[in-house]
Amino acid sequence: MTADTITAADTRINARWLIPMEPCEAVLEHQAVILQGKHILAVLPQHEADRQYRTRETLDLDTHVVLPGLINLHGHTAMSLFRGLADDLPLMTWLNDHIWPAEGKFVSSAFVEDGSRLAMAEMLRTGTTTFSDMYFFPEVTAQAAHDVGMRAQICFPLLDSPTVWGSGPEEYLQKGAGLIETWKNDDYIIPAIGPHAPYTVSDQPLTAAVELSESTGAPLQIHLHETAFEVDEALKATGQRPVARMAQLGVLNANSQCVHMTQIDDADLEQIARSRTHVVHCPESNLKLASGFCPVHRLMERGVNVAVGTDGAASNNDLDLFGELQTAAMVAKAVSGDASAVSAHQALAMATINGARALGLEHEIGSLVAGKRADLIAVDLGDPFLQPVYDPASHLVYSNHGRAVSHSWINGVPQLQDGRLTRIDVPDLMLRVNHWRQQILS
Amino acid sequence: MTADTITAADTRINARWLIPMEPCEAVLEHQAVILQGKHILAVLPQHEADRQYRTRETLDLDTHVVLPGLINLHGHTAMSLFRGLADDLPLMTWLNDHIWPAEGKFVSSAFVEDGSRLAMAEMLRTGTTTFSDMYFFPEVTAQAAHDVGMRAQICFPLLDSPTVWGSGPEEYLQKGAGLIETWKNDDYIIPAIGPHAPYTVSDQPLTAAVELSESTGAPLQIHLHETAFEVDEALKATGQRPVARMAQLGVLNANSQCVHMTQIDDADLEQIARSRTHVVHCPESNLKLASGFCPVHRLMERGVNVAVGTDGAASNNDLDLFGELQTAAMVAKAVSGDASAVSAHQALAMATINGARALGLEHEIGSLVAGKRADLIAVDLGDPFLQPVYDPASHLVYSNHGRAVSHSWINGVPQLQDGRLTRIDVPDLMLRVNHWRQQILS
Repeated sequence: MTADTITAADTRINARWLIPMEPCEAVLEHQAVILQGKHILAVLPQHEADRQYRTRETLDLDTHVVLPGLINLHGHTAMSLFRGLADDLPLMTWLNDHIWPAEGKFVSSAFVEDGSRLAMAEMLRTGTTTFSDMYFFPEVTAQAAHDVGMRAQICFPLLDSPTVWGSGPEEYLQKGAGLIETWKNDDYIIPAIGPHAPYTVSDQPLTAAVELSESTGAPLQIHLHETAFEVDEALKATGQRPVARMAQLGVLNANSQCVHMTQIDDADLEQIARSRTHVVHCPESNLKLASGFCPVHRLMERGVNVAVGTDGAASNNDLDLFGELQTAAMVAKAVSGDASAVSAHQALAMATINGARALGLEHEIGSLVAGKRADLIAVDLGDPFLQPVYDPASHLVYSNHGRAVSHSWINGVPQLQDGRLTRIDVPDLMLRVNHWRQQILS
Repeated sequence: MTADTITAADTRINARWLIPMEPCEAVLEHQAVILQGKHILAVLPQHEADRQYRTRETLDLDTHVVLPGLINLHGHTAMSLFRGLADDLPLMTWLNDHIWPAEGKFVSSAFVEDGSRLAMAEMLRTGTTTFSDMYFFPEVTAQAAHDVGMRAQICFPLLDSPTVWGSGPEEYLQKGAGLIETWKNDDYIIPAIGPHAPYTVSDQPLTAAVELSESTGAPLQIHLHETAFEVDEALKATGQRPVARMAQLGVLNANSQCVHMTQIDDADLEQIARSRTHVVHCPESNLKLASGFCPVHRLMERGVNVAVGTDGAASNNDLDLFGELQTAAMVAKAVSGDASAVSAHQALAMATINGARALGLEHEIGSLVAGKRADLIAVDLGDPFLQPVYDPASHLVYSNHGRAVSHSWINGVPQLQDGRLTRIDVPDLMLRVNHWRQQILS
């Protein structure tokens, strides 16, 4: 055996447990993750790392599990400022009588700036490193995410009706094209197209959205089949289910993400599967608004890529993706009548590699593999009230909450260290949030 | 106006918000709770407390909501040592192939002593002040709860088959009668009768259990209609649904608690309601084992008292009752198709005053009213990642997790102070838990 060559690198993370997500279901022990610049240089057993790497910095995480940073694939970040403002109401009452009036009154670029920072703070604190957003003033959220250094898909909103951000489809599309142009080569921001829903966007702007996606490569995300009411109304008005209409318009394809999908008949399933459209499951929002149950086990069995999202904090009411995974895994079992449906590992996949696939970033993020971006988190399982630990994957999904996340890195930059955010000024943020709270209350 | 008389007392707690649970749905601000000995002496606005009370100790909880201590009405505390040992399996496989073999190998009085302390530590940390237990060596759990100073209903197990705790029904009933005799007048322990389930206990011991309950006043708790399989098998074997059989045997009455109840037809509902039997809802265990959905909204509409439990940590996999409330409130909405079903306040009632009613202790605990026992908790809503707060009840149920609980008192004795347990030696407990973990792993 020849002497090893020693390689210098930035950071070495010694993990008690490592769940790299590739290979699938692997749980490794006493591994080292070597970071260099924005990338993962190597993942290897600690005793091998001793011989092969010398790093500027070494972190011993003796009671932690290290895994890819979580990907929260659906939300409306600025709505965190409306957290808990109106609960225990059905979707349309909640929107018509509470959320839309509040939005009409308060939403501005300043609101979006502060609200999206609040959401990013909570997401970083609880293990999310990449998120998707769909809200007004997307240029503000894009800039805020870029400043903080969070990876984000920023979907500009597209509706038939005028809003605070534009007069109608033409203006939304024009501003949206500008957003895509600005951010298309950025390291953190994935600009995207966010037609709100089949019942709020007519065929012409939807077709334009598809063309824009095709010409720029920008992903498209749409709320689809959120409730039985949506499907019933569409059937009454047009004789067509929304999924069929979306298929006809070209909305369903491998660069599209359909959010919610609580209603899926056999024809829907075939159209989603064959078009390789990604589905974003938001279990807590679907439960809380009584929207229904997305049959994730059926989608997965048919080979559909299912990612996961929290939706906005106004309908959740938190952005803790670990809590969402617990709900997703548990509810899938009762809905399918099969306790083996959506295992802990499958739930973790939804929030990591499946999310990466939906973004078209599966070669960059979503697993801990040499060459990928250094987007990763550590969760401390040493807490006395989590003991004993037989299987860290089980603990992450069934016993954990996001506050046990201790560290995170995005593009190799530390974002969370021992539970403290490094790049958001939390006391200043709290002053701003309290200012909005006073205004909204009065 | 005459000068106020000043009364001396032990402790004054100044609460930013107070949710006393009586009156129903009240959320008060800037209240003081005055404790004297084991009791609540008064609940009143802070400015009135200034004039009327002088206390040895005053605690300012400026960002907290104070509410009654939570009541976790179903669990198997010692099973916390099996947390995460076997997941993603249906009830009967989980029991037959994993839990029962593990129990056969490891359960002893020492196991129960350490396991129940582990569970109590987690429950105290997350806001539970009263729990119900059903497990082997109930005398050990009773003693442990008494030593720690937690209020506990301790159900001795009753089955047809022999176990590590006894040779059969006769011995269980004899030992159980002794347990009731020992603890019947205790301030913390409520001894109770725990026939396991209709499919594991035959008519004769069930009748004896009912007689023991009637003669001693001890409550009876039983797993009932946990799965559709249980009901189907009983129908095949006897032509009778288990609820009907329990009604015939006298098991259903105002001193009985039926746990799970995922299967309820109209006749079941009538029998439960008319007999004033209490139902204990365990939503997370029912989801995780794919047992089904308890229709709590139907039970509540019919006037049935519904309490809540976590079940054991082996099928949950945590004992955080706040998480259970979130699941209960959210799942009820999707199951009933009504987003107003099980509101935040109703969920809180399930874990407080409804639990007290099920125990027959509604005049002692379950709400913050002068004269009741001083069993209460404080939850810190000042955490930046919980902001903004519009409605503390919403936050407790939809945004919270049990780790935000900062303080608790049981019988006036502080159990949790700034998130630290006062009466359990956590490092020593961890050594013991790790010892069991090594044994079980090997």
